[in-house]
Amino acid sequence: MSDTKMVSLDAMDEQLIQKAKQEGVETMWDRKVTMKAPCGFGEKGVCCRICAMGPCRVSPVEGKGAQRGICGATADTIVARNFARMIAAGTAAHSDHAREIAHVMHLASKDGNYTIKDEKKLLRLAEEWEVKTEGKDIYDIAHEVAEIALNEFGKPFGTLRFLERAPEPRKKIWEKLKIKPRAIDREIATIMHSTHMGCTSDAESLIHMGMRTALADGWGGSMIGTEFSDILFGTPVPRETEANLGVLEEKQINILLHGHEPSLSEMIVMASQDPELVKLAHEVGAEGINLAGMCCTGNEVTMRHGVKIAGNFYQQELAVLTGVVEAVIVDVQCIFPSLTPITDCYHTKFITTSPKAKITGATHIEFNEEKALESAKGIVREAIENFKNRKQDKIFIPKTKAQATVGYSVEAVIKQLDRVVNSQIDPLGTVKPLADVIKAGVLRGAAGIVGCNNPKTQHDYGHIEVMKKLIANDVIVVTTGCAAQAAAKAGLTSKDAAKLAGKGLQAVCELVDIPPVLHMGSCVDISRIITLVSETAKFMGVDNCDLPVVGVAPEWMSEKAVAIGNYVMASGIDVFLGVLPPVTGSPEVVDLLTNRVEEMTGAKFFMDEDSLKLADMMLVRIEEKRKNLEKLGLATMNTAQEDDASTTALSEIV
Amino acid sequence: MSDTKMVSLDAMDEQLIQKAKQEGVETMWDRKVTMKAPCGFGEKGVCCRICAMGPCRVSPVEGKGAQRGICGATADTIVARNFARMIAAGTAAHSDHAREIAHVMHLASKDGNYTIKDEKKLLRLAEEWEVKTEGKDIYDIAHEVAEIALNEFGKPFGTLRFLERAPEPRKKIWEKLKIKPRAIDREIATIMHSTHMGCTSDAESLIHMGMRTALADGWGGSMIGTEFSDILFGTPVPRETEANLGVLEEKQINILLHGHEPSLSEMIVMASQDPELVKLAHEVGAEGINLAGMCCTGNEVTMRHGVKIAGNFYQQELAVLTGVVEAVIVDVQCIFPSLTPITDCYHTKFITTSPKAKITGATHIEFNEEKALESAKGIVREAIENFKNRKQDKIFIPKTKAQATVGYSVEAVIKQLDRVVNSQIDPLGTVKPLADVIKAGVLRGAAGIVGCNNPKTQHDYGHIEVMKKLIANDVIVVTTGCAAQAAAKAGLTSKDAAKLAGKGLQAVCELVDIPPVLHMGSCVDISRIITLVSETAKFMGVDNCDLPVVGVAPEWMSEKAVAIGNYVMASGIDVFLGVLPPVTGSPEVVDLLTNRVEEMTGAKFFMDEDSLKLADMMLVRIEEKRKNLEKLGLATMNTAQEDDASTTALSEIV
Repeated sequence: MSDTKMVSLDAMDEQLIQKAKQEGVETMWDRKVTMKAPCGFGEKGVCCRICAMGPCRVSPVEGKGAQRGICGATADTIVARNFARMIAAGTAAHSDHAREIAHVMHLASKDGNYTIKDEKKLLRLAEEWEVKTEGKDIYDIAHEVAEIALNEFGKPFGTLRFLERAPEPRKKIWEKLKIKPRAIDREIATIMHSTHMGCTSDAESLIHMGMRTALADGWGGSMIGTEFSDILFGTPVPRETEANLGVLEEKQINILLHGHEPSLSEMIVMASQDPELVKLAHEVGAEGINLAGMCCTGNEVTMRHGVKIAGNFYQQELAVLTGVVEAVIVDVQCIFPSLTPITDCYHTKFITTSPKAKITGATHIEFNEEKALESAKGIVREAIENFKNRKQDKIFIPKTKAQATVGYSVEAVIKQLDRVVNSQIDPLGTVKPLADVIKAGVLRGAAGIVGCNNPKTQHDYGHIEVMKKLIANDVIVVTTGCAAQAAAKAGLTSKDAAKLAGKGLQAVCELVDIPPVLHMGSCVDISRIITLVSETAKFMGVDNCDLPVVGVAPEWMSEKAVAIGNYVMASGIDVFLGVLPPVTGSPEVVDLLTNRVEEMTGAKFFMDEDSLKLADMMLVRIEEKRKNLEKLGLATMNTAQEDDASTTALSEIV
Repeated sequence: MSDTKMVSLDAMDEQLIQKAKQEGVETMWDRKVTMKAPCGFGEKGVCCRICAMGPCRVSPVEGKGAQRGICGATADTIVARNFARMIAAGTAAHSDHAREIAHVMHLASKDGNYTIKDEKKLLRLAEEWEVKTEGKDIYDIAHEVAEIALNEFGKPFGTLRFLERAPEPRKKIWEKLKIKPRAIDREIATIMHSTHMGCTSDAESLIHMGMRTALADGWGGSMIGTEFSDILFGTPVPRETEANLGVLEEKQINILLHGHEPSLSEMIVMASQDPELVKLAHEVGAEGINLAGMCCTGNEVTMRHGVKIAGNFYQQELAVLTGVVEAVIVDVQCIFPSLTPITDCYHTKFITTSPKAKITGATHIEFNEEKALESAKGIVREAIENFKNRKQDKIFIPKTKAQATVGYSVEAVIKQLDRVVNSQIDPLGTVKPLADVIKAGVLRGAAGIVGCNNPKTQHDYGHIEVMKKLIANDVIVVTTGCAAQAAAKAGLTSKDAAKLAGKGLQAVCELVDIPPVLHMGSCVDISRIITLVSETAKFMGVDNCDLPVVGVAPEWMSEKAVAIGNYVMASGIDVFLGVLPPVTGSPEVVDLLTNRVEEMTGAKFFMDEDSLKLADMMLVRIEEKRKNLEKLGLATMNTAQEDDASTTALSEIV
């Protein structure tokens, strides 16, 4: 594949891949070629390895080949069980991350390494959870709130607290469907139980359970992850940064932060500013310490500190290939085990830090939250001391990088919206301006574009092309995860990119002073997106599914993405997938996901491997939703293009 | 396969399989033939479907074919992750069952359907968990204890309470290995997280996590399941019953109870004795209501009520083929989805009752614990009303059945042992007599033979042959699950079977008045076995791994069995598997499980598809352990055969 066609949108990435070939270093693109065609049974989801009577592979074609596994499981059962387990694993990943952050908050102290950075947000949450705050020390409040959060993972009774944040009609739907999640871990355990040999065979039941578990991710684990990270490390505000491998500095100590949980990366940021370590960096001949982020850890630290973005998922090997990375520091999730052999080819130290994610061949320096800064300093020191081992003949830093504005928490978005509020008439701090421009048709709608990279598509192509098409059509884009990094590298998260937007969105960007594509953070921060959508729905007196809003994962690959897709759908937002999930072997599961779930949740999945076709489908769907809103008197069908009045009226509207 | 060779040890089963062929009914043996050879990648564990970049299949042969998945995962990583997930699913199944029972105890009330049957056991547990009991109503105590148990699934701090029951040296090993499980569901979630794309790649780390999670099954979920079931439904005592399909009655309403959780089956037992329903049965022309159990539900109700055993896992389809089953009533786990098409060929109603296990095509009558007896009566009524629909020309009940003695809870075993205690010298109610006969070599050791059926072996062959060989060699056998039902059908759990035992075991059976193979209950009741082993180890002042005790799963098939195998091993007891787990694609995982774990836990896995070879290995291992005990002055190497003195001395010893 890599020999015949560009695997990446980025010519510089291609040069690094060529460098790897010359240096005899194996990359994922080589492995993709060696792997040949993926197994058709596995790809269609009809391979069952749930018990040891098999493995059983049933035929996805009716009447041909084995129609049932040895126990009698059909393709529908097998596909639905496998799919449900993907949701369970994805939910577990986000939620275990959140548990970590809640434990860290439980450790926070005035004089400790972890402190409370956003007291107001903590107090708001304490109020929401009915924790008494009057006269109490902020840390006592923090510990009490943290303990409540920790109990969300395993409380024996009741359902999740954050579900209350949803619009009323949405809560009623969840109640009717009996999919209000109980404790987060319980939902994961229940899925693992119900997909065990000889339990649920009914596909619809499994899709239901999957939704319930996924909601425990979106409105449980992920939301706790985001909220608690904001309280501990600060709620992001807009800030400038740069993105792409060009952010690596030849004359500095380059430390690549890769993984997910900010409890580690925040401390590395602190450690990298430690005067003693900066001095040590100079002593070893470097001009300083340059942190660069990758994947969601990169998003966490760029949102809160403007740490530069080295790239996304598929650049983790490429970053090492530059020959200038002293250390790749990782915690959990989305870390290629291949970083061991690839860092072995260079001087780069590959440091794992989490007991939850040990990687064969890496240097394991366990991060101790109770001595967080000290741990972090030790890790940074390792990187500095490795500077001397660089192989000068192996250095190549691609020149490419782009300006980006990041940091759009919901609070930051609302603060931007306040710029256009006539405070004589309307209160500040609401989503009213956003609701107004959507109603007026100045913005046709909004899209959350999220997710990973996948070698089944050209690197970043799906992300970028869908974003460009949508903003050109006056659909504002919010983005997280590797999609956000793709956008940042392509310059779409810079305010300059407004020029690529349609007339309506362009006007909004100028007035509100935002880029057309808003970087909202890491993958757990998709909870920010559902919060923003829900707040808008509540403001307009409708449900999420009534809004012209879509969720998109053009290049997803992980089980987390499957969990996300399902909670977004169960929250009433259509989900568009650019990579087919392993469900195509079951006509029933396909029908459920792309059709029947709409009757239940008001939203469904759309799947197409052609990103541009997918974008067209989104625009159609957005206009359908507008039509329904119009019937309710909540929107006009006029577009900014058709109707100059609507843009002229913009400054009046907002 | 079914055309050329007997698939079952039981000639009558073969006749039913032939009947199915004549009637054009598909059974699992047909599906086994249609399935052809299982996928080699899947069978060796080297197929990875954890993310959507693949599926990736790596070569189990070094240097040939793809050596790494697209992310860089090796065969070791892929195998270990898949294996860890099997443990997580198995743990989830047992634990979710236990949660159900704990919730039922939380519902129990003096005048309700669920009452406290074993107050003494409840009070013992309350004391163990430091719940104040003085002056309190027994139901208040029950609810308090239930709530503590429910928090074992999700408490944010600490480790599991029942771990304290283990011998001191064992607890130290767990501490050193850092495998003391925290909350049960948390361990499941952590495995699902750590096996997510880009987390743990290190096989040893995954095996460690697997042990921790498995211990959350054995010393958490399963132990709660057993203890709470005893408190609610009575601690089993020895009682007589019969086993095999011959227990079905031509002139009665036959209700097959299949599944796992006693909360349903206990109520069905009550409902089946309801005078009004018995009268109704007579009215429809039947002589009565005949309950027959299958799989672990069968074990639960036979242990406590002597309900007859229709058979084990592989007879679930055969039972329907008799044409006399009015209803198959199921809850969760090990239920073939094929019961839908197969019951469709007869008059049999297939009734699912649990929201956790809906099966396509079955009649779903949701069991409501809050109106438990009423629900159960409704279900039994369905069966009675179906009697008229029997197709007389399709009836064939195999004549085979065997006498069995069941009901050997730990308490019951100790009570039997009391028979040989000289109460002038020794206290009653201890395991001393058992320790004494082991020390003296009258019994060479003990084996827990457990687990499922698997079409990779001849039905029940492994169970029976291993049991026969062991008892002939003076190794006492305790058994649960489908293995226990195999033993019961073969007559090995009857006291008569003592004649098949060696001289030493024979003497013990006579004096203590027990069969040589003790039926200890369902699969969660393997917690009874580890309790008995641990009590004996504590009594002798050693660790579990010092005892001449083995765990055996000759025909296992489920993920539960994988969890069991791992907690038995992590509890210090060697595990012998007659079906290879999907790990053979990783030399490292094989080495870990069959070799290196011994250094950590004092026990390891032995795997061989030849049951008799496996039995020989057990005997060797038992004698090795005896040799070590002898060095400690805790055993003699003499055997009953060699040394008449040891048997002569038996009545003195015990």
